[in-house]
Amino acid sequence: MKRAYIKALVLDKINNAPVVLLGIEGTSRVVPIWIGPCEAYALAMALEGLEPPRPMTHDLLLNILNTLDVSIDKVVIHSVKDNTFYANIVLKENVFFEEEEEAQDETAYIEIDARPSDSMILAVKKGAPIYVTSEIVNEHSIEIEEGEEESEEEKFKKFVENLDIDAFRKMLQERKEDEGAGEED
Amino acid sequence: MKRAYIKALVLDKINNAPVVLLGIEGTSRVVPIWIGPCEAYALAMALEGLEPPRPMTHDLLLNILNTLDVSIDKVVIHSVKDNTFYANIVLKENVFFEEEEEAQDETAYIEIDARPSDSMILAVKKGAPIYVTSEIVNEHSIEIEEGEEESEEEKFKKFVENLDIDAFRKMLQERKEDEGAGEED
Repeated sequence: MKRAYIKALVLDKINNAPVVLLGIEGTSRVVPIWIGPCEAYALAMALEGLEPPRPMTHDLLLNILNTLDVSIDKVVIHSVKDNTFYANIVLKENVFFEEEEEAQDETAYIEIDARPSDSMILAVKKGAPIYVTSEIVNEHSIEIEEGEEESEEEKFKKFVENLDIDAFRKMLQERKEDEGAGEED
Repeated sequence: MKRAYIKALVLDKINNAPVVLLGIEGTSRVVPIWIGPCEAYALAMALEGLEPPRPMTHDLLLNILNTLDVSIDKVVIHSVKDNTFYANIVLKENVFFEEEEEAQDETAYIEIDARPSDSMILAVKKGAPIYVTSEIVNEHSIEIEEGEEESEEEKFKKFVENLDIDAFRKMLQERKEDEGAGEED
């Protein structure tokens, strides 16, 4: 498993669809994950640290978790089926119980199936770590060249930069064709 | 407190904004509540009973509640400040504890501050009742004329009918002006 971070939130110019470029820590590779427009809006708000006047849906979810004394331990983007990425949100719950007249408490970890978009939004809002399986990194990441070394702060600040996502898409297509998965001309 | 239901989800033609017409049970009055486009999409999906292939954000929230053995008891739209409607989602949690060596269980009710849109989406998805305070009905509802009596089923089916929301808006504006809240010409 590899630690990941939101490197950028960009727009795929071909179909105007938002794409998260998930950076893999310690490498210059990114995993592009296409997300919906509503989720992109929520993610952009989270990345900017904007506090809306009323709780948005993800805030509501986090307020509920907070009230129930449950926290987000981590999120794991674990597999890809038919071009759809699957993730788990790992919740951490303190369970109190009594055994032989002694109060015990135990931490329970609960895995919840989720889309990567919701998982990333919640992780960013709560500062929870994001992980990607090595398999996804091997099969779905692409190398990006960076002109200069960036500070961590800069990486996080340029979340709506205008990277050339067309080039990524082309690279991915070429990869697929190389692997023999492409259709014949 | 009055029991309410989603009478229709319509488009305000002036600014292309979605509006929920919240019907008040046993009356021909509705409370119009403007909501965001993402919330309108989620509400439309919920009203149609569509099950998306992957959990959308409200499904994720409900899956989490289900896993934590918490249910939605009801939602209450309770007040309006500066034209913004406020709601509470009332959660129901079974709490188990031991007292004098006897297992007890108790139902805890937890109120969570929420937007009416999220509250209504969750209520529709789980079949939880929606309530509106009498104060809101008195101050923010409008009478609508119906050509024919509708069955309950018809009421629920016509959720994207094309009601003349412009007329509602005008009526509300006129009401405000009558109350002296309007600006001078």
